[in-house]
Amino acid sequence: MRILIVGGSDAGISAALRIRELDRATEVSVLLADDFPNWSICGLPYYLSGETPRWQSLAHRTEFDGIDVLRSHRVESIDPTLHRVTAATKDRRIELSYDRLILGTGAVPVRPDLPGINLPGVYVLHTMNDALTVNDALETRPEARTAVIIGAGYIGLEMAEALAHRGLKVTVISRSNPVFPTVDAAFGRAMEEELERHDVRILVGCSVTAVERLQGSLRVCHGIGLGEAADLVIVATGTRPDTRLARDAGLALGQNGAITVDRAMRTSASDVFAAGDCVQTWHRMLERDAWLPLGTTSHKQGRIAGETALGGNRLFEGSVGTQVVKLFDLVMARTGLLDREALAAGFDPLTVESQAWDHKAYYPGARELRVRITGDRQTGRLLGAQIIGPWKAEVAKRIDIYATALFHTMSVDGVNDIDLSYAPPFSSPWDPVQIAAQAWSARQTLGTPS
Amino acid sequence: MRILIVGGSDAGISAALRIRELDRATEVSVLLADDFPNWSICGLPYYLSGETPRWQSLAHRTEFDGIDVLRSHRVESIDPTLHRVTAATKDRRIELSYDRLILGTGAVPVRPDLPGINLPGVYVLHTMNDALTVNDALETRPEARTAVIIGAGYIGLEMAEALAHRGLKVTVISRSNPVFPTVDAAFGRAMEEELERHDVRILVGCSVTAVERLQGSLRVCHGIGLGEAADLVIVATGTRPDTRLARDAGLALGQNGAITVDRAMRTSASDVFAAGDCVQTWHRMLERDAWLPLGTTSHKQGRIAGETALGGNRLFEGSVGTQVVKLFDLVMARTGLLDREALAAGFDPLTVESQAWDHKAYYPGARELRVRITGDRQTGRLLGAQIIGPWKAEVAKRIDIYATALFHTMSVDGVNDIDLSYAPPFSSPWDPVQIAAQAWSARQTLGTPS
Repeated sequence: MRILIVGGSDAGISAALRIRELDRATEVSVLLADDFPNWSICGLPYYLSGETPRWQSLAHRTEFDGIDVLRSHRVESIDPTLHRVTAATKDRRIELSYDRLILGTGAVPVRPDLPGINLPGVYVLHTMNDALTVNDALETRPEARTAVIIGAGYIGLEMAEALAHRGLKVTVISRSNPVFPTVDAAFGRAMEEELERHDVRILVGCSVTAVERLQGSLRVCHGIGLGEAADLVIVATGTRPDTRLARDAGLALGQNGAITVDRAMRTSASDVFAAGDCVQTWHRMLERDAWLPLGTTSHKQGRIAGETALGGNRLFEGSVGTQVVKLFDLVMARTGLLDREALAAGFDPLTVESQAWDHKAYYPGARELRVRITGDRQTGRLLGAQIIGPWKAEVAKRIDIYATALFHTMSVDGVNDIDLSYAPPFSSPWDPVQIAAQAWSARQTLGTPS
Repeated sequence: MRILIVGGSDAGISAALRIRELDRATEVSVLLADDFPNWSICGLPYYLSGETPRWQSLAHRTEFDGIDVLRSHRVESIDPTLHRVTAATKDRRIELSYDRLILGTGAVPVRPDLPGINLPGVYVLHTMNDALTVNDALETRPEARTAVIIGAGYIGLEMAEALAHRGLKVTVISRSNPVFPTVDAAFGRAMEEELERHDVRILVGCSVTAVERLQGSLRVCHGIGLGEAADLVIVATGTRPDTRLARDAGLALGQNGAITVDRAMRTSASDVFAAGDCVQTWHRMLERDAWLPLGTTSHKQGRIAGETALGGNRLFEGSVGTQVVKLFDLVMARTGLLDREALAAGFDPLTVESQAWDHKAYYPGARELRVRITGDRQTGRLLGAQIIGPWKAEVAKRIDIYATALFHTMSVDGVNDIDLSYAPPFSSPWDPVQIAAQAWSARQTLGTPS
């Protein structure tokens, strides 16, 4: 049997590795458009900041034992009926047949349709090549002092930190107010304070109207007569699923344009599977498909797609939307639904914020965590959690306790029953995740505030 | 209604606080033998190390709004029939009647029955008064240079670090080989290396036979002609439940001498409840009672005892034995069953060790974690996990992910389905807890090694 995989990032390589792990006999080929199989795209900001000096170290792996990795093979079309794929290399076009096909074509960055958005000096950051291009630009123009970042989501803020770390004067232009609309506004404001503490300028509630040339440099316009000079502009306004191949091949797509798959990662075409940022993702809380592009999900789905392609019957158990970001000395993490998302999904949400020390205050270095729990007022069910706190205060793995609780449909109050670890350097006898659960329950008991 | 609580540590105070939270009308009195209500006993080593300079800051809380806290009231007897308690204060004996009684009498340290074990200069460390006594001894004898610690469990090793931190030359005498038998030997040896790296001497597989006076100092003997000179000796050889009052009152005790309670924390006597280190604890993995004295459990059980005393119907959901300890720069955590414990409980355990970076290796500061997963070979069920790694690598909250998984009877393989957080400074797209799960599954699939 021959399995072809289109896309050499998280989903595609995870599928290939899983196939190799389960079955040494099947022939597995991965076709990727560039030369970077299984690169850590999440690491690009750290390469550009200088914290990861060698771009080569961003490779998740460099050995692909028993997997035929076809670099610089851009797939041009898929024929699901004939089980055939056409790919272009630098100098020729080839046809490859398959028994099973796995699509892991990922996502592509969205450049807003604005005048000047494609000028030299305006970059997106989505691939290893993008990162090398930006790095070249910075190295060949050491006089570059100012950067404007358009967009204040994960990539935008991580790049703000990265370029500030590299010594540039950074301005972030955020359409949302406050920045980082993926968390509650109270925490978005805390992130703004952290940015300002590190001399990053922020313009919130601000829409870019154009990018112009300005005396060998650039100017990012955001209103009549208003604009920010920039030697470098990063556009980080989001991504969309890369589904041109799937669409042309007649595969069913969902409302958000992502490939429709079932929980075994089967597409609408027989013998064609898909995983990662290009597919609709089963949301475990919403109990419906959503588009939630995350590396963790890509790895999980790729692994399942590989298993399904071999005839296995494992299902993707769903995402609960767990995410974490480090911003200078601050860590922001979330899992599950925000209040507004829960409301839209038909729950009766109550969100309560509480504070707790990350470990016993008498032990040196205790720092405060802020926790926001969202639960259903009627049923007491845990719906989501957000934590903001300092780096090295176990914020990331604390959100994972909630993520595991959400996975099991726990009640907020039930979190108090979990036997969590404690010693004074790490926690309190009630961990902050439990203190927050108790604060939520106390408020729920008081009834609905008017 | 009047509720009396005997014991002012974690269990007793948690019960009192819960009663106060749920019902402002009930009269609540806490009787405690000493003057330290709700002190953090786990913090004693950090006071003695000097890291927590003020002993007063070890108080979990100092406000007991609406709770009648009776310090220096040593309860002498309980009459469950007449619903009456006799207590002695410094100068008199009083009788108190109750409608409901909650016992949180805790545990007492065990001094092995050895010649010289009660000599001046030989200490146990279990109460605030013990800690103040040891501190006085060190302050009034600044010439004290050497300490011997008998016992290599939690208290023993934490005290080794504490006294080494304070500048003493420390020797730990451990009956087990290696130290810290509560984890697998491979990890016990790693802890020995950490102790030795910090100039703590260790004698393993070594039984103390006597303590002798030696020229104004002490000598801890451990064999014919063998002994260690010490200015200070700490005995940390374990504890037993403090159940004299319960026994005298005719309450049923379990095999290990702890008070028998149901999962609502009811004792065998009507209107008498008990919680914390003095009771048998429901073990969620073993599905039977065990004696597992832990502060986290005391808080949970105390809270439930308080609720039951008010007529509530919440049950204690059980312990899975989650524990964590910091030893210099090393963190050791466990949850669930060790291989030998699982075997004794009738499982068919397989334990697999794996290693993983705490976060992406390309991001500065990545350190290696060692994870040992124990699962059932037949069913694939997760039975337990141990993690050892450096401080500040989120070891404690990673064990909590397993603890939460154990709480929900997950399979080892199921851990891969949990939507855990990822960004390069915190983890990998598969968290180390998942990499370890995959390593376990790969070994399970290979079948039973001969």
